[in-house]
Amino acid sequence: MTKKLDPQSREKLLEELPLWEAVPGRDAIKRDLKLKSFNEAFGLMSRIAMLAEKLDHHPEWSNVYNRISITLTTHDAGGVSELDVKMAKFIDKLTSEKTS
Amino acid sequence: MTKKLDPQSREKLLEELPLWEAVPGRDAIKRDLKLKSFNEAFGLMSRIAMLAEKLDHHPEWSNVYNRISITLTTHDAGGVSELDVKMAKFIDKLTSEKTS
Repeated sequence: MTKKLDPQSREKLLEELPLWEAVPGRDAIKRDLKLKSFNEAFGLMSRIAMLAEKLDHHPEWSNVYNRISITLTTHDAGGVSELDVKMAKFIDKLTSEKTS
Repeated sequence: MTKKLDPQSREKLLEELPLWEAVPGRDAIKRDLKLKSFNEAFGLMSRIAMLAEKLDHHPEWSNVYNRISITLTTHDAGGVSELDVKMAKFIDKLTSEKTS
């Protein structure tokens, strides 16, 4: 079972994810994205969804037109785990040229 | 431009949508759905997304694993319009055998 990160690892890994913020009151991380259109936003969500299925690790997310809000945490582990970091890095890579 | 429904039409059309509820404090309707898996949930979202693009009318929605929460309103019209009713009926049709 995936373990949640210990405080030191969490702090270090979050430094590598400057686009993500801690969610107040939860052991979770969040990123809000703005794309050019719904087409681009849902296209991005589709790519993330396929990784999520592959990892069997799914985001909590919402979408309104060209905006997406993504929260990552590992329910089984009770907090942020390496799976979340992996997914966050993948999302950052996908979005590095497309978002504001 | 799409107009929001007048109170009488709104009441009548919402009677045709028993799975949808009014959103407190907003002129909007909402439905929460539970599918069997993330695969089914995101598959449904993809079908809805394509209709949304076709109608140029997009939902506000969130997803956590096999659950989807969908809010419909017409921002331009300042409330629920016939576009929302059309989309709600389409969603109900798609989900008539798949959800609880």
